[in-house]
Amino acid sequence: MKEKDDKMQTYASAGVDIAQADRFVDRLKYMARRPGHEQMWKAAGGYAAVYPAQGGSDRGIAVTTDGVGTKLLVAHKLKKYDTIGIDLVAMCANDLICVGATPNIFLDYFAVGKLDQSADAIMQGIVSGCDQTGMLLVGGETAEMPGVYEQGHFDLAGFAVGQVQKQDLLTGERVAAGQTLVGIASSGIHSNGLSLARKVLPDDDETYLSLLEPTLLYVKVMLAALAQYGNQITGLANITGGGWTNLFRLNSKVGFNIDKPLAVPAILQKITTVAEVEMYRTFNMGMGMAVMMEGDASLIVELIKSHGFNAQVVGQVTDRASILTTGSLLIEGDH
Amino acid sequence: MKEKDDKMQTYASAGVDIAQADRFVDRLKYMARRPGHEQMWKAAGGYAAVYPAQGGSDRGIAVTTDGVGTKLLVAHKLKKYDTIGIDLVAMCANDLICVGATPNIFLDYFAVGKLDQSADAIMQGIVSGCDQTGMLLVGGETAEMPGVYEQGHFDLAGFAVGQVQKQDLLTGERVAAGQTLVGIASSGIHSNGLSLARKVLPDDDETYLSLLEPTLLYVKVMLAALAQYGNQITGLANITGGGWTNLFRLNSKVGFNIDKPLAVPAILQKITTVAEVEMYRTFNMGMGMAVMMEGDASLIVELIKSHGFNAQVVGQVTDRASILTTGSLLIEGDH
Repeated sequence: MKEKDDKMQTYASAGVDIAQADRFVDRLKYMARRPGHEQMWKAAGGYAAVYPAQGGSDRGIAVTTDGVGTKLLVAHKLKKYDTIGIDLVAMCANDLICVGATPNIFLDYFAVGKLDQSADAIMQGIVSGCDQTGMLLVGGETAEMPGVYEQGHFDLAGFAVGQVQKQDLLTGERVAAGQTLVGIASSGIHSNGLSLARKVLPDDDETYLSLLEPTLLYVKVMLAALAQYGNQITGLANITGGGWTNLFRLNSKVGFNIDKPLAVPAILQKITTVAEVEMYRTFNMGMGMAVMMEGDASLIVELIKSHGFNAQVVGQVTDRASILTTGSLLIEGDH
Repeated sequence: MKEKDDKMQTYASAGVDIAQADRFVDRLKYMARRPGHEQMWKAAGGYAAVYPAQGGSDRGIAVTTDGVGTKLLVAHKLKKYDTIGIDLVAMCANDLICVGATPNIFLDYFAVGKLDQSADAIMQGIVSGCDQTGMLLVGGETAEMPGVYEQGHFDLAGFAVGQVQKQDLLTGERVAAGQTLVGIASSGIHSNGLSLARKVLPDDDETYLSLLEPTLLYVKVMLAALAQYGNQITGLANITGGGWTNLFRLNSKVGFNIDKPLAVPAILQKITTVAEVEMYRTFNMGMGMAVMMEGDASLIVELIKSHGFNAQVVGQVTDRASILTTGSLLIEGDH
């Protein structure tokens, strides 16, 4: 993508080159390919890997891993550590739900220069996140690594495992033009694009507190929606790294017309030096989770709202690989 | 534990306080405890968490996570990145086998300041490790985190999932006094105690190349042993962080008399400023995996050797919570 304006900032200019990372992941997939990979179930958008459980081909084990990116540095700067664990759980569990799996258990990898009081707060956040999803925290690794992490610095990775019946698996194949797109509001920036946001926003406590707002956990609400309206729901897209391009992950044949978007969070509205397309390719822009569905959306919107989330019909699935907003092109699909 | 000599180095003096980390993990277990934890299967030594698969209480899903500790810094110093991924896979897969599970799939978390050529070598190592265990690498997270990791620095976490039939689960409960202890040789330091080793050994390329020797993968050989002699095998102990105290993890009622230990690797023999008990509480001291078994051990030793590993009967299981070596006390158990 070309920058429209030399003064405009991009994610790459903040040190994160998504295109380079994508090429690396493509090489890795090629490198890792082995006989046996064909036994993996095709699951929506690669949000999780799913493979059949022994002895029962109708049951799948779904797994995913993720971190929280440089949101760590926001917590570190504010010395406020009790919510970053919620983000960690959310980054994994919100992905698992997108393949239709019920998250069961969680493990954490916590690496730090030297264990200090912040460790307990970090773990309390992870436990709280697990509680909000119904997952059990059953293990993990705490690694003291002097020389890798400076005093006070740390990293977190999460691993979530869920299970899904084959008939409930979301593959994205059922997403089709004419279906409805329901957006569920985010709480703010969630856990993506922090390197860019920190670069272009003021370096003050008020900004950092807004950036630290924990990622919403959509697990319980979406499990309820899938239980009640599963036959209508054709796809779920967790809007994380890559912003709205996540909508393209489920089905290469479709695009979206988003004419009634959710409100852009205040913290993202404050960013003025990033081109519009780069904003939508980096941040969730107010939509943390997208639901693609057939038929009447009003009952599902009501159900989502009854769980305390803001949600609305934001647009429709179209038959061209692009995202339009009120008629004009926002993002051209590359598929 | 008291140091015997003020000049002697300890793991704590290298910046890694195992006792403090253990207290943290104890607090974490208490914090994470929820209804539902009682559904987890009791699995040997906490090497992996195991829980029942949906719809079939005789099948369990086994999961574990680990990293490679400061062995990362050894790879970084030598700018040799093609084997650290083998260590990562080994740290997870060798744990899974200790509960009797067959490892199936692996995911990695790879965090780096800026992606460079070393990334492909690191991933090639992970793929090679997976190949040596029969696991598929099915996903992962590549995180570019400028500001958390300096140029050239990185961290790795691994996540392995396996499956086990309830009848094949190793719980450690069958380990009993009078049984035989078979030791399988390590390739060197493996991936534990590197912070201490780097502190007390010369800072030269020869030393660092020895320290970088990849961890052995005991998965295929132990799967073969379990398939053929599973009724004789009562426990497996992966000798990782904590050195020989890992032997105490399986069963609190027993100890060990190790009168025919395997040879101590040359790199560990070079360490002269660490007290003997601290050496055995930190490093594998030549024994990467321990097999506790009933009956005649000769056939299992032959099978292990036929897979290219060095192995021998190293001692017996005793009825007191300590490790003796040729009659004298080496490590007092704290259980």
